[in-house]
Amino acid sequence: MPDTLKGNLIVGQSGGPTAVINASLAGVVQEALKHSEIGSVYGMLHGIEGVLKEELIDLGKESPDTIELLKQTPSAALGSCRHKLTDKDYDRILTVLKAHGIRYFMYIGGNDSADTTARISRLAQETGYELRAMGIPKTIDNDLAFTDHCPGYGSVARFVAEAVRGAGLDTEAIGVVDTVKVIEMMGRNAGWITAAAALARIDGDPDTAPHLIYVPERRIVMDKLLDDVQKVYDRLGYCVIALCEGARGEDGDLLSATGGALYTDSFGHKQLGGAADYLCRVIADRLKLKARFDKPGTIQRMMQSQQSPVDVEEAYTVGATAVQKAVAGTSGYMVTLVRQSNDPYRWTTGLARLEDVANAERLMPDEFLNAEGNNVTQAFLDYARPLIGPPLPPVARLKKYMVAKKA
Amino acid sequence: MPDTLKGNLIVGQSGGPTAVINASLAGVVQEALKHSEIGSVYGMLHGIEGVLKEELIDLGKESPDTIELLKQTPSAALGSCRHKLTDKDYDRILTVLKAHGIRYFMYIGGNDSADTTARISRLAQETGYELRAMGIPKTIDNDLAFTDHCPGYGSVARFVAEAVRGAGLDTEAIGVVDTVKVIEMMGRNAGWITAAAALARIDGDPDTAPHLIYVPERRIVMDKLLDDVQKVYDRLGYCVIALCEGARGEDGDLLSATGGALYTDSFGHKQLGGAADYLCRVIADRLKLKARFDKPGTIQRMMQSQQSPVDVEEAYTVGATAVQKAVAGTSGYMVTLVRQSNDPYRWTTGLARLEDVANAERLMPDEFLNAEGNNVTQAFLDYARPLIGPPLPPVARLKKYMVAKKA
Repeated sequence: MPDTLKGNLIVGQSGGPTAVINASLAGVVQEALKHSEIGSVYGMLHGIEGVLKEELIDLGKESPDTIELLKQTPSAALGSCRHKLTDKDYDRILTVLKAHGIRYFMYIGGNDSADTTARISRLAQETGYELRAMGIPKTIDNDLAFTDHCPGYGSVARFVAEAVRGAGLDTEAIGVVDTVKVIEMMGRNAGWITAAAALARIDGDPDTAPHLIYVPERRIVMDKLLDDVQKVYDRLGYCVIALCEGARGEDGDLLSATGGALYTDSFGHKQLGGAADYLCRVIADRLKLKARFDKPGTIQRMMQSQQSPVDVEEAYTVGATAVQKAVAGTSGYMVTLVRQSNDPYRWTTGLARLEDVANAERLMPDEFLNAEGNNVTQAFLDYARPLIGPPLPPVARLKKYMVAKKA
Repeated sequence: MPDTLKGNLIVGQSGGPTAVINASLAGVVQEALKHSEIGSVYGMLHGIEGVLKEELIDLGKESPDTIELLKQTPSAALGSCRHKLTDKDYDRILTVLKAHGIRYFMYIGGNDSADTTARISRLAQETGYELRAMGIPKTIDNDLAFTDHCPGYGSVARFVAEAVRGAGLDTEAIGVVDTVKVIEMMGRNAGWITAAAALARIDGDPDTAPHLIYVPERRIVMDKLLDDVQKVYDRLGYCVIALCEGARGEDGDLLSATGGALYTDSFGHKQLGGAADYLCRVIADRLKLKARFDKPGTIQRMMQSQQSPVDVEEAYTVGATAVQKAVAGTSGYMVTLVRQSNDPYRWTTGLARLEDVANAERLMPDEFLNAEGNNVTQAFLDYARPLIGPPLPPVARLKKYMVAKKA
């Protein structure tokens, strides 16, 4: 048993906000307040920048109702940051932590945050300052290694599934006017978010939206894509495409960059276009089909009513668990999610070394993507389905009993 | 009392789908099945095109559960259309209606649909065929005259309010990186949808998103807009803008067209850009602030979980009422929504002549827009608030008790 470590705790949020990163914050705060080893519970304003600037707040003084309400509040209530730290910064961080008697360091974020936390942990150890530093996973991108999935993903997946289902119903109804709909999802290198669109299909029917899914893990051959679209159109009269903003063409260039290269502004500068915007123009130009795009942007990660209850519970638990583990003596680890069974869905937490998490990125594995590179597999659907919480609400499908013609 | 009119009923959906146009369909079908005067209940596939092609379905054969489920199913289950009718088309329509013994004609749509329904009604009368034709209002744009508001608007308003609230929380958290967020809402001439963003403000605090609102009813003076943005940024460190896709500059040109004029594609053709895309580029260029846009597109009108319960109930009721009125002898009218009181919100239905509805467009009145042209008034908030159903769920706001500096 490690010695009991008495001291204050600090928690911060880093990187892009999610629908549930505040649930992890609630988990940290509510758990920390239970432990007599922990004195004050501080929050960093705007992540590690708050430590550098010594802008700390006392979370213990917030009303318990406010902390409870964090569970259902999207975005990062402490403020977030994207900050590349220098060696000098790390010295300053340790100075601030020591000045405030902080012995517990909790950082909610992705692999950059894991790296930051690992370095702070190492530096504290090297200088003989006992500090227990833990990482708490967070990213809508779902690209952290050593964890089955990432808090934040289930909720963005739920949004994407419902949005694409709606777009499918919409385009089916008015496809005579707006024939092709492209929905651009977030994701620079990994297609996890875009792939979740497949959960939109009504009763799993592959003829319901999305008909085609393109992720960065598979290069897009434009002639093949156009052929795919034409075939769906010929069969159904409309087509809905889920496209990752990070999708790349045959040459490995981002579609958005390719689109950009088409454009020159009035000053003669080449401008980047969005991937979906570009794809719509190619489809209109080559297939002569009217194509429109939706780009939900940050809305996809931030819709309060699209929180997945599973995601909220997991996000809360990884926060609370990080505190429990640190109090019990663990340091230098990130709490992970471990899937125990799929049906019924059961999970528990595990641990991964921060250094390992920091240096890895998990793209979609081959078994989750079809050979043609335009769809996901059943294995992916089985993986993603439990993470969005309850199934999407049912929708009516008319049988359409035709009336015999008389006129 | 008019004579009892026995015959079949037909119902169709027209124009852009909404989150609740199927609730109106459910209202028509369930009400029609109650009346012994009405024989079969038919649906037009893809609106009036279904009549022209004689593609009719027998809605009475659908399961009652399916009809009930229509209430919570976004989009247009019968399929929609945008069809300009010729004189010859009207003759054909009457031929088909007569061939199928149709005496009740129910058309769910906007002012084009009101025009179509009015003409069919007139032609039937001129040719001595007794037909009771009723319009049922539908448009997310909320721009029909003679009705307090339009079914479909409350749900898109709810989506917009929640999306902009999320975008505000997101930008507040990560504004150090992505400083200005522009959210582009639908609306060609009327700013109703964009204005609903104002319902996002947390506890009505004008320092929460949206900070600025630009609608087509007020021309944008770009220097003034940039000054507005700079001031918000100086005060808060970030800025969220609700922008209508139909926003126009001082010269009266669409921002999107102005944006387009900046661009020339590789074939030398000028390309239209989106309004938000363009505005982001201007802000980045002139204010040197990083600006990103979200363009939810058709997602905003089609999100199942964003249905406003008030909107669903009203949409259902205008459908059912149209049938009741027709059975009772009314023809050539659209059912309207009449507000009786605001707090508590109470409403009833009324009637407007289809000809009157067909030829009017209701833009936002002056009392709903502030003098500066960058915000809505309290009068608008009072008007729009009841239409989204329950208030948005609460969100946590930390008090942020600062810890005294020590390092």
